[in-house]
Amino acid sequence: MIFEEKSVTSKEIFKGRIVTLKVDEVEMPDGSLAERELVFHPGGVGVVAIDEEDRVVLVKQFRKPIEDAIYEIPAGKLDAGEDHRLCGMRELEEETGLKAEEFVYLGFIYPSPGFTDEKTHMYLATGLTQGETHPDPDEYLDIVRMPLNEVLSKIMKNEINDAKTVAGILKAVSLKG
Amino acid sequence: MIFEEKSVTSKEIFKGRIVTLKVDEVEMPDGSLAERELVFHPGGVGVVAIDEEDRVVLVKQFRKPIEDAIYEIPAGKLDAGEDHRLCGMRELEEETGLKAEEFVYLGFIYPSPGFTDEKTHMYLATGLTQGETHPDPDEYLDIVRMPLNEVLSKIMKNEINDAKTVAGILKAVSLKG
Repeated sequence: MIFEEKSVTSKEIFKGRIVTLKVDEVEMPDGSLAERELVFHPGGVGVVAIDEEDRVVLVKQFRKPIEDAIYEIPAGKLDAGEDHRLCGMRELEEETGLKAEEFVYLGFIYPSPGFTDEKTHMYLATGLTQGETHPDPDEYLDIVRMPLNEVLSKIMKNEINDAKTVAGILKAVSLKG
Repeated sequence: MIFEEKSVTSKEIFKGRIVTLKVDEVEMPDGSLAERELVFHPGGVGVVAIDEEDRVVLVKQFRKPIEDAIYEIPAGKLDAGEDHRLCGMRELEEETGLKAEEFVYLGFIYPSPGFTDEKTHMYLATGLTQGETHPDPDEYLDIVRMPLNEVLSKIMKNEINDAKTVAGILKAVSLKG
């Protein structure tokens, strides 16, 4: 039986456009109090899109927190109340202009459950057809199609290291068998 | 060429024991400004420990942000300036009492590079010997050893969904061949 940490106090420090930060005091099994720094996030969806030549669609974009541009699967945040399947289809089309005939759920990850409730759903998209792109106004992306073998090699060499991208692609490969 | 987002202003909102929150204004390619909510985190190390019977050592602990207890590989945060290999060995021993003869680097993940700089290194530990546990005073853990096949099944059924656990175990399996 795992002990649940009940909040004794909860203080909202910041409510932004994307994250909300709270500091809670929780009661421990021995009756003592511990502090928890909690970042609430709307969650999102990442899409492993693989074309008929077994190439993976990746986007490279600058990520301010790490001050670097990295390869990731197309992804985006969930709007309030949005279905994660529809969100994945929307984000794939907005970022890459692609529509998929098949959209298979790969499960979700908790990117970092020690401090944030963020939950990232993942889908495998196949049967791709190319349309126009509709990027968000503050998104600047490079889109590439990289052979799956090369993607797997880059994951193992640690040149691809975004969590949803690593987890989503390795799960997709396990699924395909 | 990927555009870099240079900060025009940066405001520290919160500096806690674990996370620091800043809001930066960054300049976009068209000269407009965009806001970035940035959570800085010390990063950590997770250890995929596999025993001689091909069982994976997992810890189940309550995670306040998600209000649930989930299976994870043993892991912990990096102390300032700490070597991530030594941190991994320390955390494995503190949480599980295990020492490993072999400790192989599995690379790192960025759990959520859209809003946090957190970087989680991963190791594969084998040649395990059991000693005593020395858990942190506010950690309450259940430790289990689960057959690797069952772990992989739970990953595919989405019953194991912590990012470092999914990425670390699937990378370890790819490495073992």
